[in-house]
Amino acid sequence: MKYPSGIKKNHIEREITYGNRGMSLEEDLNQSNAYYREIGKAYIYKKPTPIKVTKVVYPSSREAIIKEAFFEMPSTTDYNGIYQGFYIDFEAKETTNKTSFPLANIHPHQIEHLRNVLSQGGICFLVVRFTTQNLTFLLMGEKLMKFLDEFDRKSIPLAYFQKEGNLIKEKYRPRIDYLEVIDQINGGMNRGKSKTFQS
Amino acid sequence: MKYPSGIKKNHIEREITYGNRGMSLEEDLNQSNAYYREIGKAYIYKKPTPIKVTKVVYPSSREAIIKEAFFEMPSTTDYNGIYQGFYIDFEAKETTNKTSFPLANIHPHQIEHLRNVLSQGGICFLVVRFTTQNLTFLLMGEKLMKFLDEFDRKSIPLAYFQKEGNLIKEKYRPRIDYLEVIDQINGGMNRGKSKTFQS
Repeated sequence: MKYPSGIKKNHIEREITYGNRGMSLEEDLNQSNAYYREIGKAYIYKKPTPIKVTKVVYPSSREAIIKEAFFEMPSTTDYNGIYQGFYIDFEAKETTNKTSFPLANIHPHQIEHLRNVLSQGGICFLVVRFTTQNLTFLLMGEKLMKFLDEFDRKSIPLAYFQKEGNLIKEKYRPRIDYLEVIDQINGGMNRGKSKTFQS
Repeated sequence: MKYPSGIKKNHIEREITYGNRGMSLEEDLNQSNAYYREIGKAYIYKKPTPIKVTKVVYPSSREAIIKEAFFEMPSTTDYNGIYQGFYIDFEAKETTNKTSFPLANIHPHQIEHLRNVLSQGGICFLVVRFTTQNLTFLLMGEKLMKFLDEFDRKSIPLAYFQKEGNLIKEKYRPRIDYLEVIDQINGGMNRGKSKTFQS
């Protein structure tokens, strides 16, 4: 999905309730998802930012200009799609924190959504980038829930990502090859193990 | 997903490039998806309307008001999610046309998206309501592509929906039980035939 303008990106940035979030992880994921689509590997998209429109004008019958609107809290995660028959769902966040990922970055309804996806046999995970060290981890939903269920912490230590997560290598294309990690974890989803639906 | 206001709905209505589209099919689907989530049957959501934001003001560091924005063309279909391990993806449209469904209602990139989902083994379909007769059909992606590949037509006749599609009965809850149709077609996805992912 295309991003409209730097302006919008800044607004999204401003919308987010914690500071210093760069857009580079999002840009890396957009490039990677575009690449996956190009080669037919997976069809995963970032959902549009939910916006509540309260005022629109119509210069012509075909033209609508929104004159007042507000950013809304997403109900689910930012990214979902299909990868070889599997439902994929994830949230991506950056943190400038050097030692841990503050859980305040993930809304409770997003955690609940990830639990629901797990309960349905979907593949869900977090992609978390520690921007200072430029380390990007994939943490499977199961490992996230394990942490949340076992520890009463306000943040996930970097050490937990290093122990239970998977470091995502940066490449040229795709920049963030997170499906390679999924393949490794699943022992080769790309070797025809996914089921297809026959109607 | 909640709908913000009647105002927004009207705007969305105005945004759509063909006339007389009621919101009732969308409302029926929202109620049905909310019901499916309530009972843990499926987690399927309508994607937010893509909006390009071009001007925002910040009355305070925490508050952002969009002062200029434009509706954008969706890249994909309106609805997707997970149902018992299966990736679900569909588009829903109403038509006031009595005898056929004009294909102008579906954008070429949406058709392409549905083909991509099919190629990945996902479950995709159209939900089309003929508002005059109040008939709501589910047409599987495979049947849609069959029509598009075999016939050079600008619209899909009602007769094709009656022959190749499935009529969706209206109920109290869920109002539009489209997953019942999917279960029938798939011979019981709800009997544990879907695969789950083990990490």
